[in-house]
Amino acid sequence: MPLSFYQSSTQVFIHGLGNLSAILEKGSAYGEARKIDPTVMCGLRLTADMLPLSRQVSTACDSAKLAVSRLSGVEAPKHADDEKDFAELQSRIAKTLDFIRSVPEAAVEAAAGRKISLKIGGTQREFESDAYLTLFALPNFYFHVTTSYSILRANGVELSKRDYLGPILG
Amino acid sequence: MPLSFYQSSTQVFIHGLGNLSAILEKGSAYGEARKIDPTVMCGLRLTADMLPLSRQVSTACDSAKLAVSRLSGVEAPKHADDEKDFAELQSRIAKTLDFIRSVPEAAVEAAAGRKISLKIGGTQREFESDAYLTLFALPNFYFHVTTSYSILRANGVELSKRDYLGPILG
Repeated sequence: MPLSFYQSSTQVFIHGLGNLSAILEKGSAYGEARKIDPTVMCGLRLTADMLPLSRQVSTACDSAKLAVSRLSGVEAPKHADDEKDFAELQSRIAKTLDFIRSVPEAAVEAAAGRKISLKIGGTQREFESDAYLTLFALPNFYFHVTTSYSILRANGVELSKRDYLGPILG
Repeated sequence: MPLSFYQSSTQVFIHGLGNLSAILEKGSAYGEARKIDPTVMCGLRLTADMLPLSRQVSTACDSAKLAVSRLSGVEAPKHADDEKDFAELQSRIAKTLDFIRSVPEAAVEAAAGRKISLKIGGTQREFESDAYLTLFALPNFYFHVTTSYSILRANGVELSKRDYLGPILG
């Protein structure tokens, strides 16, 4: 059996968002122990002109949500990108997981052979569904999960590759 | 057609390593323009106990090399992890690409349905080949490519998502 679209998208996003949620739990506990305002923690950035933690997380969520929506043709719910603390970010992840889990496996598998059209930087672009998933949606998702991890890690939160890869490492 | 192992591994790594090479070119040019010793640039870290740029790049290379080796059963060449400047890192990427391109598509596709055994943290673990690729090899690869990007980006090199995603954005 080759790889299915469902396991290469939906299952990857469910796994990765679960790991991201656990990483944020550690960030939240770190801040609480030091009485740091959670909105300060969620506003941390790697550098001034990169997105803060809050937007790295919401963009990771949207990368996953929009990938499943575009692959399946099922319309995605809109989210406001206004999360300011860990509780709101956890709720954003939960809403994203609810949508992703609600899209039937058969609808995601129907992406095979279809074209995906999306606007990037103001230009409408068309991709084969396999190139869209493997060269756009997945690297984009991992970019924002990794950057969320790095922001907390670089600010002292004790995290390791095990937190990033999650339960697959047992 | 579902996704093939070859396009989800070999082709992804060739694309991602090409993007990483271009990102390092920008880092090298930035350092040259400011007369910064390239070994200083390649020794930059996001924080003291994370790997420096040089090892983020070599680990990205090894994630790709070992994934293709394990999926195909073709033995991978060993590399010493002793790169200290941009030229040596580019050479490491080139050697990795040579190996990945040398492994026949049919050998990679033969991963379907096989088990992959590897040692993680001293423990021998066995994975289904699809879970190994989608939940271990790919997130690991993107972790180190993204962190390489972030180290240079956080140190002032002008990079954008377009550099990370590469030519797919045209």
